[in-house]
Amino acid sequence: MRIILDGMGGDNAPAAVVEGAVLASKEIQHEIAIIGQEELIFAELKKYKYDENKITVIDAREVISNDEAPVRAVRSKKDSSIVKGINMVKSGEGDVFISAGSTGALLSGGLFLLGRIQGIDRPALASVYPILGGKASLLLDAGANAECKPNNLLEFGIMGNIYMEKVLGRENPRVGLVNLGAEAAKGNTLTKAAYELLEQSHMNFIGNVEAREVPKGACDVIVADGFTGNVILKLTEGLAWNILQLIKKKFTDGLKAKFGAALLIDKLGELKKEFDYSEYGGAPILGVKGPVVKMHGSSKAAAVKNTILKAIPFVEEKVVETIQNSVLEIEEITLSE
Amino acid sequence: MRIILDGMGGDNAPAAVVEGAVLASKEIQHEIAIIGQEELIFAELKKYKYDENKITVIDAREVISNDEAPVRAVRSKKDSSIVKGINMVKSGEGDVFISAGSTGALLSGGLFLLGRIQGIDRPALASVYPILGGKASLLLDAGANAECKPNNLLEFGIMGNIYMEKVLGRENPRVGLVNLGAEAAKGNTLTKAAYELLEQSHMNFIGNVEAREVPKGACDVIVADGFTGNVILKLTEGLAWNILQLIKKKFTDGLKAKFGAALLIDKLGELKKEFDYSEYGGAPILGVKGPVVKMHGSSKAAAVKNTILKAIPFVEEKVVETIQNSVLEIEEITLSE
Repeated sequence: MRIILDGMGGDNAPAAVVEGAVLASKEIQHEIAIIGQEELIFAELKKYKYDENKITVIDAREVISNDEAPVRAVRSKKDSSIVKGINMVKSGEGDVFISAGSTGALLSGGLFLLGRIQGIDRPALASVYPILGGKASLLLDAGANAECKPNNLLEFGIMGNIYMEKVLGRENPRVGLVNLGAEAAKGNTLTKAAYELLEQSHMNFIGNVEAREVPKGACDVIVADGFTGNVILKLTEGLAWNILQLIKKKFTDGLKAKFGAALLIDKLGELKKEFDYSEYGGAPILGVKGPVVKMHGSSKAAAVKNTILKAIPFVEEKVVETIQNSVLEIEEITLSE
Repeated sequence: MRIILDGMGGDNAPAAVVEGAVLASKEIQHEIAIIGQEELIFAELKKYKYDENKITVIDAREVISNDEAPVRAVRSKKDSSIVKGINMVKSGEGDVFISAGSTGALLSGGLFLLGRIQGIDRPALASVYPILGGKASLLLDAGANAECKPNNLLEFGIMGNIYMEKVLGRENPRVGLVNLGAEAAKGNTLTKAAYELLEQSHMNFIGNVEAREVPKGACDVIVADGFTGNVILKLTEGLAWNILQLIKKKFTDGLKAKFGAALLIDKLGELKKEFDYSEYGGAPILGVKGPVVKMHGSSKAAAVKNTILKAIPFVEEKVVETIQNSVLEIEEITLSE
């Protein structure tokens, strides 16, 4: 297996990416090919001892930034790490592409270069959702599709179910639909119709899940349109950050509290770690004809390493092929409506 | 002024409602009329010393529960506290109706009994949104309209702006639209079109606000469709609860931590209080022809008291009339599109 790693994407590239590759390389036998401006990557690589057969460098001169219009960037920058990397997955020169670069460019690249799996109307971005004191859930769509039809939500459920089982190792995942209330009749036109479709699937569909229950781990696969999914993910991030800031402020305010906080310092650290979901690997783009994984832009070496490790079952468990095989079920359900 | 208070709605009725009325009555000169099964209300009232001219009781024999289909309940239970109370506002026998009862019944009651303000397409539920370490924002629609058109979001912004200024006393409130990104071109069909409309208003429209920024108090009036608004509100509630539980668990785990937690006990209390937005009063239903306020179902006496106090500027500042007067602006903007 050959893992293609974007050396140019993310806030900490190429340093964190290269370091993460070196760390991962010690634990696996597969080749990791870092793609990007080779002089920059080699400059980082030479800081470490590494096996030159297991970490290789592929030169790509262009860089796609987060500010660029994704579709245009993907169409024009043929020699960028993102376009070249995804094309290597397409041609079979690579098995999976991992990048902390522009989400839009990765989605466009997946869509235009690899193409949709036939029968999947809308590929989705699946993001790990942290559950405090429990195992993380998987949320999709995390923002690839601002506008959705009911069949898209069915697809999200089925694709998420496969990834959760095969890559994150959760047996018979509970699939839930984010909605206004628990009853089947609740919701807007979209969620009401999606409920009907999801209910007909072979999955362990537990029905509607209120947003209040999501952080408690009410379901393993959280199904929502990309607008709602994005709101859930970002609100969680913002609120958690805000609460931790307030805790820090309150607990260091006054002598008595300072003394107490000193005693609790490791507990506060643990708390912060609960929100850190880098250990679960990045966010896969599901529904395109090849494995592509988006990492958080601020990923550090440990997150890069974990994403590389999780990319292995993504390839080995044949997630893309399994999604391809599930298309028949999706068609049967949507056509019966 | 005569404030009509639902004695039968909420988890703690009639005890908490009656106690809250007694507490409020000590601070205001207006009459508070508690409506509901009079023997139950009098049984609570006799526990307190109160001015019989300032707290009165109106008998209503029926009760609408949270499980009932709202529209049917409002149509059939003419002698319920909710229907009778709202009808008193309509007839002028009361100036405002406050209830911790079924949100659906209050919305249906507002809509069918009082009626929409002419020119307002969709009345909304406006809910206070807690900002940790800051002043609360106002979120609307909090769930009255699962499906929205762009003009509805304009209405929500304008109505929320009025309430924020007149009742919550925030000058020139910053009105923000919940969206996927800060740029005007971001979002789905609904938010893109709503952005265009909001931008034309006289308000202090600060543009799109990402969900990540909402808990930080990025805007005073948070505009969203009812589905998204409901997700924001409930997710915040669920996540905050979850984090506080985890803090409690972590900080009482092990002897050293227990010692630290004992020192921090008052800080933890403060933290919990930050989430308690009962001091801001209940959630007004805006866009109907009369003041109706929904309290949280679990409201205790202090929350009831605060809601009564906030209902006074809702009436005195003529919020309903001001919304009525803003209809011309809404029409001008939507017709110009």
